[in-house]
Amino acid sequence: MKLDAEWVTGFVDGEGCYHVGIAKHPEMRAGVQVLPEFTVVQHERDAQLLHALKAFFGCGVVRRNHGARMAYRVRGLEQLGAHIVPFFERHPLKSQKRLDFDKFRRVVRLMEAGEHLTPEGTARIRAIAAQMNRGRLRESPAPLETGEDEPSEIPCRVSSDPHER
Amino acid sequence: MKLDAEWVTGFVDGEGCYHVGIAKHPEMRAGVQVLPEFTVVQHERDAQLLHALKAFFGCGVVRRNHGARMAYRVRGLEQLGAHIVPFFERHPLKSQKRLDFDKFRRVVRLMEAGEHLTPEGTARIRAIAAQMNRGRLRESPAPLETGEDEPSEIPCRVSSDPHER
Repeated sequence: MKLDAEWVTGFVDGEGCYHVGIAKHPEMRAGVQVLPEFTVVQHERDAQLLHALKAFFGCGVVRRNHGARMAYRVRGLEQLGAHIVPFFERHPLKSQKRLDFDKFRRVVRLMEAGEHLTPEGTARIRAIAAQMNRGRLRESPAPLETGEDEPSEIPCRVSSDPHER
Repeated sequence: MKLDAEWVTGFVDGEGCYHVGIAKHPEMRAGVQVLPEFTVVQHERDAQLLHALKAFFGCGVVRRNHGARMAYRVRGLEQLGAHIVPFFERHPLKSQKRLDFDKFRRVVRLMEAGEHLTPEGTARIRAIAAQMNRGRLRESPAPLETGEDEPSEIPCRVSSDPHER
């Protein structure tokens, strides 16, 4: 399935989530690990859309989230900085989610500058992350694979599917 | 805000709902009223998107749904048949919601042929409507303005916004 850039922007305006997790991590220099993540969650019936997004962006993974929910997920500074952020700079979101993307982009750029490796930079990033996804719909994240703690922020979207209750 | 057709298709793939309500209505010849409806619900912070959809399609209304949720809603056979159905015929949805649209379109076309005015036609429409939005996310509809009963089917989407609890 081939996707159009405008379709992707519209779909992400509805279904996408930009999230910055911050997990305690004593082995890291700043004592925490910063985990930016772009996610699109769908019911498994639309898993093919998630695979189409993965092909479109040329990065990320499609995994089961929980229950019948699947997630397309991009973590990793390199992929976010080279693929995800530039796309949404060229194709601005039309919803208020754009404000979250702007903060997400700032965090990714700060991390590219190595700011997440210092306590001062981490404090800056934490302050930005705390302003994200406020009053947004939320879905509890799947457990982080890398952090030692649950992230201090949780992603955007709770969807209640009656078939999962 | 000007919308692109592909953006609209992507956004509706995520956020749109095609619904056929069937309400008892003793004054109608077939004893029921058939109420097809196309809806996009958003938090009020994105009300401007709903107004942009209204301008894009050239029909429908933007109303408060409940709480902080707003809805763009198109009812009325003429508007659905002339504006909504043809658009999504030209710009097919990519998600499984397309299957609901296909049924919705069949109902609209049957109604244009007057089938909803006969008991046999109503039974056909009811059978199609019963196959819609199965296992979809749901949101309880705002009360119908015209029917005497609540519709027998409810639209697609439940979103849980922590700020509304």
